[in-house]
Amino acid sequence: MKAWPDQRILDLFGIDLPIVLAPMAGPGTAALAIAVSEAGGLGSLPCAQLGGGEIRTALEAIRRGTSRPMNLNFFCHTPPIRDRYRELAWQGLLKPYYLELGLDPETLLAPPSRKPFDAESCAIVEEFKPPIVSFHFGLPAKHLLDRVKAMGTRVIASATTVREALWLESHGCDAIIAMGFEAGGHRGNFLSDDMARQVGTFALVPQIVDAVGVPVIAAGGIADARGIVAALVLGASAVQIGTAYLFCPEAKVPPLHLDALKHAADDETMITNVFTGRPARGIVNRLMLEVGPMASAVPSFPLASSAVGHLRAKSEPAGSNAFMNMWSGQAARLARRGVPAGELTRVLASEALARL
Amino acid sequence: MKAWPDQRILDLFGIDLPIVLAPMAGPGTAALAIAVSEAGGLGSLPCAQLGGGEIRTALEAIRRGTSRPMNLNFFCHTPPIRDRYRELAWQGLLKPYYLELGLDPETLLAPPSRKPFDAESCAIVEEFKPPIVSFHFGLPAKHLLDRVKAMGTRVIASATTVREALWLESHGCDAIIAMGFEAGGHRGNFLSDDMARQVGTFALVPQIVDAVGVPVIAAGGIADARGIVAALVLGASAVQIGTAYLFCPEAKVPPLHLDALKHAADDETMITNVFTGRPARGIVNRLMLEVGPMASAVPSFPLASSAVGHLRAKSEPAGSNAFMNMWSGQAARLARRGVPAGELTRVLASEALARL
Repeated sequence: MKAWPDQRILDLFGIDLPIVLAPMAGPGTAALAIAVSEAGGLGSLPCAQLGGGEIRTALEAIRRGTSRPMNLNFFCHTPPIRDRYRELAWQGLLKPYYLELGLDPETLLAPPSRKPFDAESCAIVEEFKPPIVSFHFGLPAKHLLDRVKAMGTRVIASATTVREALWLESHGCDAIIAMGFEAGGHRGNFLSDDMARQVGTFALVPQIVDAVGVPVIAAGGIADARGIVAALVLGASAVQIGTAYLFCPEAKVPPLHLDALKHAADDETMITNVFTGRPARGIVNRLMLEVGPMASAVPSFPLASSAVGHLRAKSEPAGSNAFMNMWSGQAARLARRGVPAGELTRVLASEALARL
Repeated sequence: MKAWPDQRILDLFGIDLPIVLAPMAGPGTAALAIAVSEAGGLGSLPCAQLGGGEIRTALEAIRRGTSRPMNLNFFCHTPPIRDRYRELAWQGLLKPYYLELGLDPETLLAPPSRKPFDAESCAIVEEFKPPIVSFHFGLPAKHLLDRVKAMGTRVIASATTVREALWLESHGCDAIIAMGFEAGGHRGNFLSDDMARQVGTFALVPQIVDAVGVPVIAAGGIADARGIVAALVLGASAVQIGTAYLFCPEAKVPPLHLDALKHAADDETMITNVFTGRPARGIVNRLMLEVGPMASAVPSFPLASSAVGHLRAKSEPAGSNAFMNMWSGQAARLARRGVPAGELTRVLASEALARL
């Protein structure tokens, strides 16, 4: 078998194939992560929306399912300070939808469903000692990061600009995920929230590669072997793939979301903050068009999500995707359909090797 | 010498290297175009801002300078209908800057400086019979396009989405320029003006390649050999490079613009409509930050430009780039500095071949 041209990420993580499963809070199950790791890539368990007990359950499933390297992913946003006036404004903006769906617009906002990496998460990490931990929205506080690194765990995180990549490297990251504009889900930006300045994968990857000494994992718009090889040509040592794995049977994708993914053209996603308060790329739907895509009245992440959550809870069972966050990158059309995640990983890798 | 993996664009245009000089109205001189064509790439003469006499002068210089294939580029926007109220609103928005610079805010708007491809341009094309003509913002009216094609001239045009690529192919284009989000200057979009849906080069190129039968030229974020090879891996038959050529001595780049280019980080450009009325990517400056980047009050393309032009004419000689359109893609940092355009073309090609 041919060798990969750049062994750095393979050596760093102890994996065979330079393919990282993007952690996708919601669709990203333990089974999906296990399948990718077993195939020789790096599986990722998205922990951002899970409580401590849920993380433990998933990690036990992973322990039973594979002895191969695994990545645990956490968000590390600053916990929001609740602003009652802002929340009221947001409720007011959404009120017509509440009335349309027969919901009480005075419904209290639920507490946020996404917690940043904290002492509790760190204790779980120490218990399970995953070989890799990845962070989104920067890095956690130094005392927590030090504890993660003290175990010998490799720490990686997303950068959406060269400046963020340099910041992450100087704060101890072992590799940088260069997250281009095309990527689905939450943007990893943390030094700037100016979406007008986000950088496309094609321009971002080589500039980050040139700027940092650690290896770079390219993300955003990569969904087939052409993309993997192109990313390596641009200087990446590996790729992170998300959207293409949403079509795998192991992913827990709501039927309406999967149906939208199957039909998503290249220009049918936008970056929006209306679902959670932070910009994220998803397939265009009614809420994004009518309230967004970028709303200035939105409460801080993740406080925006509960008000929209009520709308989704009522409309999704009735067959409407109007209030669903249907995260997707810009290359859903390139993805294979219905292939199990392990097979997808192996096929992508062998097709990429054949092109190299 | 190794062969290029895809010969289609080379055969179609009769050139040796799969590198097209992006037509850059303003900086793009006849000397720049000649140098690229003489090196074996495809030079492009941007005609959008030139009158008939100026085009003839440039074409005569080109005839003297090279017998190799050459591309003439034209805009084909719909001529704007002047809206006095909109223009007044625009003048009102810019009034504080007029006062700050000691200009008369009642200065009449000059007629637009950019003309779409028309019967006069077509007559010049028929006179000089260029082997290639490229269009931006769609295609001209059928009777004009038929005249261009009747000469055997190859017609190419920019697409920013798969839908635009399919439209261009079905209207007779011989090749499609897949213009990703990263590209500098005016976006080529013509079926939608929704900038929130623009697609990154990495996702756009393979999806257009899969959708059309004609060869594809990748544009946006390509400034070195890595980018050329990555674009070919994604399925492109050639690349179009703009920003990297702005550093060549043959380019006519104002000193303040060149200085900004030399220092432009990956995230220092934005797509803005404040300079001309149409979205274009340029290096962030005061006008973009204060009035844009996307202003809803802006007159239709290209009517917005004259009011800003007065501000530029007064401030640029005083050393300020506050009102200059400093077009750039997102990868200026990857460009070589000060290398003549012919040498740059040859070096990029030989480095790309070495990597293939």
